[in-house]
Amino acid sequence: MVHHHFASTLLTYTPQTATVIDGRAIAEEITSGITSEVRRMKNSIGNVPGLAVIMVGQGRDSQTYVRKKLGACEEAGIQSKISTLPDNCTEDQVLNALSCFHEDPSIHGILVQLPLPQHLDEGKILNSVQLEKDVDGFHPINMGNLAMWGREPLFLPCTPKGCIELLIRSGVEISGKKAVVIGRSNIVGLPTSLLLQRHHAIVSVVHAFTRNPEQITREADIVVAAAGVPNLVRGSWLKPGAVVLDVGTNPVKDPSCEYGHRLIGDVCYEEASRVASAITPVPGGVGPVTVAMLLLNTLESAKRAYNFT
Amino acid sequence: MVHHHFASTLLTYTPQTATVIDGRAIAEEITSGITSEVRRMKNSIGNVPGLAVIMVGQGRDSQTYVRKKLGACEEAGIQSKISTLPDNCTEDQVLNALSCFHEDPSIHGILVQLPLPQHLDEGKILNSVQLEKDVDGFHPINMGNLAMWGREPLFLPCTPKGCIELLIRSGVEISGKKAVVIGRSNIVGLPTSLLLQRHHAIVSVVHAFTRNPEQITREADIVVAAAGVPNLVRGSWLKPGAVVLDVGTNPVKDPSCEYGHRLIGDVCYEEASRVASAITPVPGGVGPVTVAMLLLNTLESAKRAYNFT
Repeated sequence: MVHHHFASTLLTYTPQTATVIDGRAIAEEITSGITSEVRRMKNSIGNVPGLAVIMVGQGRDSQTYVRKKLGACEEAGIQSKISTLPDNCTEDQVLNALSCFHEDPSIHGILVQLPLPQHLDEGKILNSVQLEKDVDGFHPINMGNLAMWGREPLFLPCTPKGCIELLIRSGVEISGKKAVVIGRSNIVGLPTSLLLQRHHAIVSVVHAFTRNPEQITREADIVVAAAGVPNLVRGSWLKPGAVVLDVGTNPVKDPSCEYGHRLIGDVCYEEASRVASAITPVPGGVGPVTVAMLLLNTLESAKRAYNFT
Repeated sequence: MVHHHFASTLLTYTPQTATVIDGRAIAEEITSGITSEVRRMKNSIGNVPGLAVIMVGQGRDSQTYVRKKLGACEEAGIQSKISTLPDNCTEDQVLNALSCFHEDPSIHGILVQLPLPQHLDEGKILNSVQLEKDVDGFHPINMGNLAMWGREPLFLPCTPKGCIELLIRSGVEISGKKAVVIGRSNIVGLPTSLLLQRHHAIVSVVHAFTRNPEQITREADIVVAAAGVPNLVRGSWLKPGAVVLDVGTNPVKDPSCEYGHRLIGDVCYEEASRVASAITPVPGGVGPVTVAMLLLNTLESAKRAYNFT
């Protein structure tokens, strides 16, 4: 019966190709604004924002992400430091690295690249990041303040903040709209659902215990796919005209690519782009904007630290 | 068309009277368990749990609630202290009252009765409640840990905890079910939606910006009404067989009642009880269980403080 309903809706909808939301272009625009602010700060007070990254182990994905983040910092004139620790390091070593960056006045943002090796207590480590430098926004106080009305977190997590930015810059109304977030990780799904609610969307979170994810997703005006499952979201999961943000970055083997693999999203792009009104590609969608938001959080933190407006 | 759909669903459903979820009986059962635990604690280590209440002003509702909470403490053998401050007191006076209770080793739980007068910064005051004594669970760290996966808040807010307790004790499966929470207050709607998600429900929060709240609510297997609007949820808002928890306690004038008013819920009980499979009455539903959860949180806190198991 659901299929009937869907089919009849399709009859009144002219299939077309979705607008591609160009995350790279949007990220460049944002980064260009950040770059001039950093220059203005340097000219005015002689300081620039500083970001510190703690990376444990040699995970290929983590290395790629960290390289992108540090490259973006350099481009924007943001100073960066990195502390790399071996895969078998102790919790104390990570906490010591944190302490050093806490005490370093030239550092305004600290991020611990996730995931951490199993033997480290991720919760304890993230709880130890100084609130004022928690540019990833993963400290439970920042998360609690994101969830609660009338409170303001010091930092919004970068991916959710990037998703909202993509929606706003694409002219998508959020308030009053039905949104479905697929996946409920602490770093994407959860804070994205909280942030969409702050923007007055009616949000449902779909997860592994959801019996009919396609049916619930099909009701949404805005779909954020962050399950980490390649091609999970098919064209039939989408309401015609929905706006789709694909947070997934799943490597699949492809010998024709430089590193022997390419990235695909959680959304079956071919199918979805024929049903959605707008969609982010992978790569080149949410990813670059997430990095831009990290720079923005670091800039905002430095402005706060130097009382620079 | 929506109405058509609803009507056709009704045709296949035999209307019946919903099971009344007896919150008073459930609360008594829980409180009786707490009472014996308190007795065991006293016999074993000579101490009992202690709850402190800070009440600002003379709001009639607040007075009623506080009276109920203190009465329940007495019944269970939990010691209680109350600090009453005038309506025009300063923030410092409230913070001082908090400090006294923080330092008092006989106090294991502190609650600041809400709402506070407008001139006081509620956020700042709730943020100042010592985490270990935050039996209302309103501190943003407790809220953040409630929201995040793999984290455990020290205390679950009493009303949401009571709602889950009511569902479980009524044999209602939560995992995989669609739940709608109507209202998104920091003290009920928000934490209830987070807690239902923790129990693997698929949760939507309906609020003032929702254009079609009745349509969204009608999809839910579990409805938690916490909007503070009398009789907001009509029978036509409910899916036949839904389970309805009514958190609303709205006073309406009624000269035939002892205090000149009686309490009604957010749900139109007459209509809803003909559509739902189970429903909580107002009064006698969520309210008593909320008070029982406060006692339970205070007991748990005391056990933690005395390392008593």
